[in-house]
Amino acid sequence: ATQAAVAATDVSKLPHVKQTLVAPPNVPAHEQTSKGPKVVQITMETQEKLIEVAPGAKVWALTFNGSVPGPLIVVHEGDYVELTLKNPKSSTLAHNVDFHAATGALGGAGLTLVQPGEEVVLRWKAIKAGVFVYHCAPGGTMIPFHVISGMSGALMVLPKDGLKDNKGKPYKYDRAYYIGEQDFYLPKDDKGNFKTYGSPAEGMADMLEVAKGLIPTHVVFNGAVGALTGDNALKAKVGEKVLFIHSQANRPSYPHLIGGHGDLYWVGGSFGDAPLTNQETWFVPAGAAVAAAYEFHQPGLHVYLSHNLIEAVLLGAAAHMTVDGAWNDDIMTQLKKPASFDAKAGMDH
Amino acid sequence: ATQAAVAATDVSKLPHVKQTLVAPPNVPAHEQTSKGPKVVQITMETQEKLIEVAPGAKVWALTFNGSVPGPLIVVHEGDYVELTLKNPKSSTLAHNVDFHAATGALGGAGLTLVQPGEEVVLRWKAIKAGVFVYHCAPGGTMIPFHVISGMSGALMVLPKDGLKDNKGKPYKYDRAYYIGEQDFYLPKDDKGNFKTYGSPAEGMADMLEVAKGLIPTHVVFNGAVGALTGDNALKAKVGEKVLFIHSQANRPSYPHLIGGHGDLYWVGGSFGDAPLTNQETWFVPAGAAVAAAYEFHQPGLHVYLSHNLIEAVLLGAAAHMTVDGAWNDDIMTQLKKPASFDAKAGMDH
Amino acid sequence: ATQAAVAATDVSKLPHVKQTLVAPPNVPAHEQTSKGPKVVQITMETQEKLIEVAPGAKVWALTFNGSVPGPLIVVHEGDYVELTLKNPKSSTLAHNVDFHAATGALGGAGLTLVQPGEEVVLRWKAIKAGVFVYHCAPGGTMIPFHVISGMSGALMVLPKDGLKDNKGKPYKYDRAYYIGEQDFYLPKDDKGNFKTYGSPAEGMADMLEVAKGLIPTHVVFNGAVGALTGDNALKAKVGEKVLFIHSQANRPSYPHLIGGHGDLYWVGGSFGDAPLTNQETWFVPAGAAVAAAYEFHQPGLHVYLSHNLIEAVLLGAAAHMTVDGAWNDDIMTQLKKPASFDAKAGMDH
Ligand SMILES: [Cu+2]
Ligand SMILES: [Cu+2]
Ligand SMILES: [Cu+2]
Ligand SMILES: [Cu+2]
Ligand SMILES: [Cu+2]
Ligand SMILES: [Cu+2]
Ligand SMILES: [Mg+2]
Ligand SMILES: [Mg+2]
Ligand SMILES: [Mg+2]
Ligand SMILES: [Mg+2]
Ligand SMILES: [Mg+2]
Ligand SMILES: [Mg+2]
Ligand SMILES: [Mg+2]
Ligand SMILES: [Mg+2]
Ligand SMILES: [Mg+2]
Repeated sequence: ATQAAVAATDVSKLPHVKQTLVAPPNVPAHEQTSKGPKVVQITMETQEKLIEVAPGAKVWALTFNGSVPGPLIVVHEGDYVELTLKNPKSSTLAHNVDFHAATGALGGAGLTLVQPGEEVVLRWKAIKAGVFVYHCAPGGTMIPFHVISGMSGALMVLPKDGLKDNKGKPYKYDRAYYIGEQDFYLPKDDKGNFKTYGSPAEGMADMLEVAKGLIPTHVVFNGAVGALTGDNALKAKVGEKVLFIHSQANRPSYPHLIGGHGDLYWVGGSFGDAPLTNQETWFVPAGAAVAAAYEFHQPGLHVYLSHNLIEAVLLGAAAHMTVDGAWNDDIMTQLKKPASFDAKAGMDH
Repeated sequence: ATQAAVAATDVSKLPHVKQTLVAPPNVPAHEQTSKGPKVVQITMETQEKLIEVAPGAKVWALTFNGSVPGPLIVVHEGDYVELTLKNPKSSTLAHNVDFHAATGALGGAGLTLVQPGEEVVLRWKAIKAGVFVYHCAPGGTMIPFHVISGMSGALMVLPKDGLKDNKGKPYKYDRAYYIGEQDFYLPKDDKGNFKTYGSPAEGMADMLEVAKGLIPTHVVFNGAVGALTGDNALKAKVGEKVLFIHSQANRPSYPHLIGGHGDLYWVGGSFGDAPLTNQETWFVPAGAAVAAAYEFHQPGLHVYLSHNLIEAVLLGAAAHMTVDGAWNDDIMTQLKKPASFDAKAGMDH
Repeated sequence: ATQAAVAATDVSKLPHVKQTLVAPPNVPAHEQTSKGPKVVQITMETQEKLIEVAPGAKVWALTFNGSVPGPLIVVHEGDYVELTLKNPKSSTLAHNVDFHAATGALGGAGLTLVQPGEEVVLRWKAIKAGVFVYHCAPGGTMIPFHVISGMSGALMVLPKDGLKDNKGKPYKYDRAYYIGEQDFYLPKDDKGNFKTYGSPAEGMADMLEVAKGLIPTHVVFNGAVGALTGDNALKAKVGEKVLFIHSQANRPSYPHLIGGHGDLYWVGGSFGDAPLTNQETWFVPAGAAVAAAYEFHQPGLHVYLSHNLIEAVLLGAAAHMTVDGAWNDDIMTQLKKPASFDAKAGMDH
């Protein structure tokens, strides 16, 4: 750029607010509407750690803040995001961040590459409302390698006056969950067992070779098969409106809530458009985060999954959700329990 | 649920109407608008049968009413669906139904599991307008196994006042077809021939192993390669508006009408949103049913397929459609028949 | 069709305009609004040529006018397209064109099959506004074979009064690029090297066998890995609105502009519907062309790719874009350069 640079607004006078990031599927404390522009200060640390994706399947996860996916960040349209990114000395690789919500410098990736032992501070303005992926993108083959090793998360830019439903009416959610879906491509040894490597770099060539075949060995929520089932199931109550933020940094996904629906679904995660309604299964393009909201009408187990049922059940892309409240017989009722019948009185066939 | 249950509306006073289900691609007789809430009574039987997907490729199909896909069910918003599900004594497996259109109890799957020789009756209220998948979901690995063995269908919930076009004007179709797309994962023997098993359970482990690779051996409409071609081609007339309901319970699909268009396309199959227009190819997220409508302008062969052309032509996802009427030269005309030309007078290259 | 044919409008009285087609990613000179219906005359030649998709990977490309993809054609709604299709004597195969924008005769494929040495002239009316794929479709297995050998392109039908943004306001672009994405399925020899064949037909059976596995060996823009990078990068200036037309005739794609956004995105490529906004990553259903527009706000390198990062980086689906102008510090600024930090003062973990 040979032209003179555009001067920045004096953001030093804006309120500065530290956001405490939390591990997914939880989301940080936040207001749904904005009181005016602010600087949201966040710190993320790149952490490399050996994790178990499924029994007997270990991988060197490359992470933001130690979780797969990284934490959800929440700001409002017009806010400034001030990120301090730290790469600890114990790391083996350089990392950075490409925020899909940001504008310029490869989403910030070009200005945030930190070697082990370094930190950097980047500020950018949230000018697009919606939910967006962020991910590490250190260049060349390191890009898919870091992303398929777990190094992505999501950032939500809420409209100043909050969400609107399909009729344009303000929509307030009672609870939000962030589901980060991750595809892994774990190499196997000659006996068909998953290989464990001594460092991220040691497994890279093998993993990229598996990845070139485009078929993951695991597709999981929150970093591991069963990470959001049983004791870790999501919770809600009948009558609550729940916002689900779903990201997939590398492959398409097909979110579906068994026993429920997407009452509202923001295509591509954009809050600039009216949401669609009545979705049985919605869609996450590869490399995107989307949002869907549902008001629960019935208690009991619900299952939130990606509706390629092979991926959901055999590769891991399923979460449980337990809902408390009263059953509504008008909406569904079992008129006759399973019981033996006289086959001769049945249908002809 | 520890709270008191919500009482049901007294649905016994509503009109009760039996719907006679028919084999796809046909749809049951139905009105396009509602005369008020009613109880639609349907009976489905789970049938296990060895079918031929392509010459030399047999599979134990798990079906509703003997067809792959199961029959289309048609109701209106506000109606109650009263399903009697029968599993004949001759069956080898337990089956149930998860209606994506229903709310609670895993879409009814939690209240409908029937062992061989049992029947069950479930009633649920259609509160979401659109087209929706239903499928068997008996739990764990049985879920993908039953679904990739053919055990899904679709249910259409029409708005009370019928469909609307993209301008909000009432839209009446002259004809409807239900295209159920099925992915099969048939194991091969050492010589590369498809294996036939003695029962569904016998082939299950092998089939799930193929399925984990996520690449189907067959992708078909109406249960077999060529099931909707030649003598079984769909039919329409120039000037008719045809509604296509397309379901895929497990994978994405890309419906396309060669020589025609999606004049109207309801994203995700929701009738709660204005349809999109002018689609060359539309989209079915994995685990969804969608609807598209087209008014035919030209006679002759049309081909309805999923526009991954490998899947359409090599794996089977194509149907023929023969259209009767007068050719319109204004829309298309061959000005010069194929004839040899003097290459020297042609383009430079 | 036994009924009398509908007479054509007397199109001989309309203005006839020859459109000079250019190689992608460039687009032909055109007006964004229409001065009234016209006949747009284009000539395309089917060319078969051995091309290098990546170092050491050659394929007999089947092309329109010698490029993969074929050229973009631009007309307005209500115009007539008059195509002269020439198949030179030196060709080894018959070719035709199925225009997804056209109506009837399999999109024109049924009226345009030309043997080597033949030409044909077809006229059809553009009645649907949007961007649409065209491709060769000679019947049976020749359809996927020609398409996965490169034989597709795109045609844009602009609304008479030009594009509109999401608020219905006229939208004028400063520049347009056409990105044609191509999946190749190149067979390998026993040593794992890509095989080169003596003619298109010689490689057909092997290529279709690879294709049946549905996993491409290459996914590229403009016919080859790196065809739109380095010296061939796309260009734009800060403040310019750029329209991106993206086609994929056979597989889904996930266009994404690193460092930018889809300000406007026309789903399925239809200009009959309001565009969506704020897309981080948008979607091309298999067998479709879509359009997205972006106003550049920052200078420097941007990367336009399909955001399956494995496909983008390892299989080839990436383009570079260099943008000239002044950096805007308000939108993004590096507050602190990467520098070593005292780990003891960092986050607890
Ligand atoms: Cu990294
Ligand atoms: Cu990205
Ligand atoms: Cu079953
Ligand atoms: Cu389901
Ligand atoms: Cu051809
Ligand atoms: Cu086509
Ligand atoms: Mg657990
Ligand atoms: Mg998004
Ligand atoms: Mg609801
Ligand atoms: Mg037949
Ligand atoms: Mg649907
Ligand atoms: Mg029409
Ligand atoms: Mg180059
Ligand atoms: Mg299109
Ligand atoms: Mg912009």
